[in-house]
Amino acid sequence: MSAVSAVATDRAQADAAVVVAWCDELADITAEPGRITRVYLSPEHARVNAVVGGWMRDAGLRTWQDAAGNLHGRVDGSTADARTLLLGSHLDTVVDAGRYDGIVGVLMAIRTVARLTAAGPLPSAVEVIAFSDEEGTRFGKALLGSSAVAGVWDDGWWDLEDGDGTTLRRAFTDFGLDPESVGTAAADPSTLIGYLEAHIEQGPYLDRAGQALGVVTSIASARRFSVEAVGEARHAGGTPYERRHDALLAAAEAALAVEGICRASQHIGTVGTMTVEPGAVNVVPGLARFSVDLRGEFDEGRDRVWDAITAAFDEIAVRRGVAVEPTEVHRAPAVFCAPALMDALRTGIVSTGEAAPPALFSRAGHDAMSLGLVTDVGMLFLRNPDGISHHPDEFVAEADIALGLDALAVAVRTLTERHGTGPDGVS
Amino acid sequence: MSAVSAVATDRAQADAAVVVAWCDELADITAEPGRITRVYLSPEHARVNAVVGGWMRDAGLRTWQDAAGNLHGRVDGSTADARTLLLGSHLDTVVDAGRYDGIVGVLMAIRTVARLTAAGPLPSAVEVIAFSDEEGTRFGKALLGSSAVAGVWDDGWWDLEDGDGTTLRRAFTDFGLDPESVGTAAADPSTLIGYLEAHIEQGPYLDRAGQALGVVTSIASARRFSVEAVGEARHAGGTPYERRHDALLAAAEAALAVEGICRASQHIGTVGTMTVEPGAVNVVPGLARFSVDLRGEFDEGRDRVWDAITAAFDEIAVRRGVAVEPTEVHRAPAVFCAPALMDALRTGIVSTGEAAPPALFSRAGHDAMSLGLVTDVGMLFLRNPDGISHHPDEFVAEADIALGLDALAVAVRTLTERHGTGPDGVS
Repeated sequence: MSAVSAVATDRAQADAAVVVAWCDELADITAEPGRITRVYLSPEHARVNAVVGGWMRDAGLRTWQDAAGNLHGRVDGSTADARTLLLGSHLDTVVDAGRYDGIVGVLMAIRTVARLTAAGPLPSAVEVIAFSDEEGTRFGKALLGSSAVAGVWDDGWWDLEDGDGTTLRRAFTDFGLDPESVGTAAADPSTLIGYLEAHIEQGPYLDRAGQALGVVTSIASARRFSVEAVGEARHAGGTPYERRHDALLAAAEAALAVEGICRASQHIGTVGTMTVEPGAVNVVPGLARFSVDLRGEFDEGRDRVWDAITAAFDEIAVRRGVAVEPTEVHRAPAVFCAPALMDALRTGIVSTGEAAPPALFSRAGHDAMSLGLVTDVGMLFLRNPDGISHHPDEFVAEADIALGLDALAVAVRTLTERHGTGPDGVS
Repeated sequence: MSAVSAVATDRAQADAAVVVAWCDELADITAEPGRITRVYLSPEHARVNAVVGGWMRDAGLRTWQDAAGNLHGRVDGSTADARTLLLGSHLDTVVDAGRYDGIVGVLMAIRTVARLTAAGPLPSAVEVIAFSDEEGTRFGKALLGSSAVAGVWDDGWWDLEDGDGTTLRRAFTDFGLDPESVGTAAADPSTLIGYLEAHIEQGPYLDRAGQALGVVTSIASARRFSVEAVGEARHAGGTPYERRHDALLAAAEAALAVEGICRASQHIGTVGTMTVEPGAVNVVPGLARFSVDLRGEFDEGRDRVWDAITAAFDEIAVRRGVAVEPTEVHRAPAVFCAPALMDALRTGIVSTGEAAPPALFSRAGHDAMSLGLVTDVGMLFLRNPDGISHHPDEFVAEADIALGLDALAVAVRTLTERHGTGPDGVS
């Protein structure tokens, strides 16, 4: 619990109850009954956009789906040529996910816009974006939705395949999107004030500090790799150890090397997937594929750590006679949040009665990483007890969501007033 | 190459050419075009039984499929109450298999019976059995076919599931077999002389010795386990190492412990499969499942090694906060070949001009392990260059098959004459 007895406004408490009920409702939009799995360009993606779009319209937003499947909801400002403040997060999930990661930020943004425009338009326009792919669950490449909005879509991605061999291009057309039009999803940076995102912390640091809310200073520098270890399939009984080139054991050593090197260097490296071929009880594995997800606060340190990891892979490869070949599938530079947006969020947090918020380095990637390539970004983190995320036990307290709604309303009002003129809108 | 310039008879050379052509033909009966995969109770199982059954009938054998899907071909003896010598091996394969493992032994047996009965019946009956499941590829449990013939079928196996969740019971009925009748596949031990099996060596020991043929003294004591490592799925970015319970890293350490302990103790242990859940690039694995296949020459030594492995698993589990739970799925005691059958094979080998054959301990499991529970068994091994098996590069030279056919003919004649009276039949 928070060491400071901050209490949210009645309005925020009522909105938080709505947000929690919505999170529960969206948890039923899943490809796998009994657990939450909602991936890019799936039937569940279409359903969640339809449901959340309805909520946006109920809140007075004008909605549309862009050429990359992102859902937008917009209210114009009272000043005709005012710039736009973007709010948002994502609606897609990992496999067997929790119900808050990404989702709570989208829904908080909708309630915040409804609250601030209840008495009339804000000076500037506000646009809520529910990003369609942040996790990269289906195609292995994260941040596809926000990359389209940031205008950094890479045509090389069209050939990415999902686990069934469906290309991203084919998935677009199956979903009813035109790959040739993806460029139209890009926002014009000159029209933007910036991008604010509320998100659960996906670690235990706020909980440790006894704080409900925090402000992100920077988002981790991340690289992802797909690694193939190629040995030789042999009979498990008849092949002596000295004649084996066991791809699984090479991959096992590689995974432990990632852990050892990252721990020693204060980085975070994770091997999250592993598949083995031929995958029979009585055959020495000839092939193992695994992923490496590497994160650090700064690009240079992260790259030095990767160099050390590849050196370890090379040593394993030579010793075991197993080729260990990494291919980079994702690279995102560290993104530093904008002082003006951090200030607005800090002001909002302190206004709730919370203590001055701790500065947090986000080890998790977020849609703000893409937006940070073209505009100022800021992130508000909500406490996540014990830091459990990407898991059904993921949790955020309704009381913390309510405090977050109060803080976000102040921040949004502050930023929209600075870029337009109009009525004072926090109710 | 053999250090001894043994040359097979013309008849054996002609038969070897047929056997090789048949192996090539059966390689096309596969569930996966371009590679050989033929598993128990599959459409390919039905097709291979039909094709090989035709070859048996062409060779003068009376054929039937038993209640466990094994294919039998029999010639009666000239002595009415003579016992039966069983010959055989298996027609199922691992995934992406070679074309000789098991198959060559079945086909050599057919040609041997044809050769020995060309001039009239042998004193004793001879029955060739093409076992339906030796590898355990589909249900994880090896030796299902020969277990039925040995009369050691376990009703607990009916609930075993394949990768699609189909139970063994359901697969039986889908194949047209009656689960309630499986007991009728059991041979009456009192009617048997013994069981002889020709098989490629699945290791490099004969090749190292410069010998085409060898006699097996005993078949490895084997145990197989399915192991589940249960940790906690967490976000890959936000979760510090000290809060992780990474199931994949626990499994990686466990696999390396199996290798280290087995190497040090002259046993063979293999982790052939590994699956990870949820299996996403950006999620710390919460669950890893892997197999352990453990083999040794003697049961006691094998069990001591397994005790050391489980102690290592326990240490990993405590240190990482990940439960590591093995379940035994297969156990076969070491089987020792019968002196009379080894003598008959040795006599056969020496008659070809080969040097006195080396005694081999078979680290691979074979159908003879099941038959050894109820009758005397003997095994003839054929040289396998570099010991590659369970792999498309698996190979055995036609010249070595020819020598094996000559040796097997002598051994079968010797054993059938000892148990009956009749004409001298080797042509």
